[in-house]
Amino acid sequence: MFDNEEKTNLERLGEFGLIDHLTKSVELTQETTDKGIGDDAAVLDFSGNKTLISTDLLLEGIHFDLRYVPLKHLGYKAVQVNLSDIYAMNGTASQITFSIGLSSKFPLDAVEELYSGALLACQKYGVDLVGGDTSASAQGLVISVTSIGYARAEETTYRSGAREGDLICVSGDLGGAYVGLQLLEREKRIFLENPNIQPDLEGKDYIVERQLKPEARKDIIELLRSLGVKPTAMIDVSDGLASEILHICKASEKGCKLYEEKIPIDPMTYDTARDFGLDPTVCALSGGEDYELLFTVDQGDYDKLKNQPDITVIGHITEPAAGTGLISKSGNVHPLQAQGWNAFRRV
Amino acid sequence: MFDNEEKTNLERLGEFGLIDHLTKSVELTQETTDKGIGDDAAVLDFSGNKTLISTDLLLEGIHFDLRYVPLKHLGYKAVQVNLSDIYAMNGTASQITFSIGLSSKFPLDAVEELYSGALLACQKYGVDLVGGDTSASAQGLVISVTSIGYARAEETTYRSGAREGDLICVSGDLGGAYVGLQLLEREKRIFLENPNIQPDLEGKDYIVERQLKPEARKDIIELLRSLGVKPTAMIDVSDGLASEILHICKASEKGCKLYEEKIPIDPMTYDTARDFGLDPTVCALSGGEDYELLFTVDQGDYDKLKNQPDITVIGHITEPAAGTGLISKSGNVHPLQAQGWNAFRRV
Repeated sequence: MFDNEEKTNLERLGEFGLIDHLTKSVELTQETTDKGIGDDAAVLDFSGNKTLISTDLLLEGIHFDLRYVPLKHLGYKAVQVNLSDIYAMNGTASQITFSIGLSSKFPLDAVEELYSGALLACQKYGVDLVGGDTSASAQGLVISVTSIGYARAEETTYRSGAREGDLICVSGDLGGAYVGLQLLEREKRIFLENPNIQPDLEGKDYIVERQLKPEARKDIIELLRSLGVKPTAMIDVSDGLASEILHICKASEKGCKLYEEKIPIDPMTYDTARDFGLDPTVCALSGGEDYELLFTVDQGDYDKLKNQPDITVIGHITEPAAGTGLISKSGNVHPLQAQGWNAFRRV
Repeated sequence: MFDNEEKTNLERLGEFGLIDHLTKSVELTQETTDKGIGDDAAVLDFSGNKTLISTDLLLEGIHFDLRYVPLKHLGYKAVQVNLSDIYAMNGTASQITFSIGLSSKFPLDAVEELYSGALLACQKYGVDLVGGDTSASAQGLVISVTSIGYARAEETTYRSGAREGDLICVSGDLGGAYVGLQLLEREKRIFLENPNIQPDLEGKDYIVERQLKPEARKDIIELLRSLGVKPTAMIDVSDGLASEILHICKASEKGCKLYEEKIPIDPMTYDTARDFGLDPTVCALSGGEDYELLFTVDQGDYDKLKNQPDITVIGHITEPAAGTGLISKSGNVHPLQAQGWNAFRRV
């Protein structure tokens, strides 16, 4: 996809040259970073706090398609997806490592685009890039991100803390990233059949952005703190609402009741899903990649949350014997299923 | 390379099934691990110590060739290579995350082999496996390891601490991993030309193991502590002695003199290099993958180290103006060059 002539050559630059080139604009801003790139390991200081670690692998042809994903967006998303896991522990993300495997055919300015997206995410979220690995790849583009953060022991929130009667809440709205993906896939097919037809994504910015440029919900963590609400359990929505609430119920050894009519779905997500002949609720339950936060709170916290436009109460936690059910708009109970996203089925 | 029939199918198992299956034998043994696999992030407690983080990407066709690398060895090596970076900071490795991207054609028992090698390394080195990501790969096998450790502020050793007059020391011996690789590559070529000829690696166990199953030098870190020696600078030998000493000199803004005759080379490495028409010293300087520790110490520590069979003094640190030179056996001075290993040149 790239014009490779007249471009700086990775082979000539070499691994150390590429690392120097890419990292010269990396600035360290976090008090918890003692030493970033440039030694065998980064050195961090979380004096007294718990250290949080999470890691993700993003592989070309599985997690992204370079035919419609701009590289800067990809670098940005790779970081967001990973930071989201730290926020889901009610922690503060403070550092990442960013590793890439790429073909020597990849032009330098394409690598720069990817890296600039990662750095933009770091700047925006107050996170230092402290290391990584840069390697040739014999096949496609490989991205591996590890995020590091911290939290006080008493604020760390696990999946396992949900109690009977707790309210189930979710931030933002769901299903948009999945419907945005359907739109991008359709335009790709049209383009491949007839390259003269330009992609028609007009008026669909919101759901296309949900797919290409998700934002981890650091703001929700800060909002909950300012409201004095500590979730009893929390997880980020990467595989779809159904899969995530089942993780919380399993880890907490509880059941749940979700109400279909309460699930927040943006009108554009709703209408576009309908255009594709998809059930918007199914997109929210099983679509994934929304990177919203799903959490449970004590009923006593309801008054603090009820007027927050970005948080929706969608159900409650039950005793385990009650099972895990979705109450449909017509009042029927459907057992929740983690259809989620089975990457192995796609290859 | 694998017989795929009658084997448990990754597609049927799915991502969560595979993770459950692989991680059911993971035991947590480290006091610093609060929470391992099973939440959005691992939770660690380094109360008062610095946190160390390092990460490596290993890609099929670049870093390993599955035609002669047994999967269990590969899992073991992937972990060792990464732990080595934590020891090179004079730290204690305590946790890793282990991520894999693999084709759905990969049979389950092959994944188990890979994972069992990683777990064996963890057990042997007293390290907890606390997370990772498991994904399908559209191409080859992808392994990403992040290692986490800790050190007291005053014991953390950077590349930048070498002072004029410090002695340059290296653990073990050098060049073996590279010569072992030449042997394996030769046997692969012979096998590809005539599959009836079995590999002839008899009597070459040591250098084949140096390539396939390196051991990070945790023992050297412990030895130095017991001797009361704190290195002024340290790095692990992953890209070859020349490249590593240049990293130390650059970070410390110093020069160095290395003595060819002092460089420790095992007789089997020496003889096999000669058989291949290679200069054993060049194998030590530029071969890489030995995962020994290269460090500088104060001259006053010489008496504590001189009788240690596993540590060799190979030179000393000079003022920067003296440059970075190798004194050959014949007494000539050659400027050191970081030929190292340019992965981009291999693709």
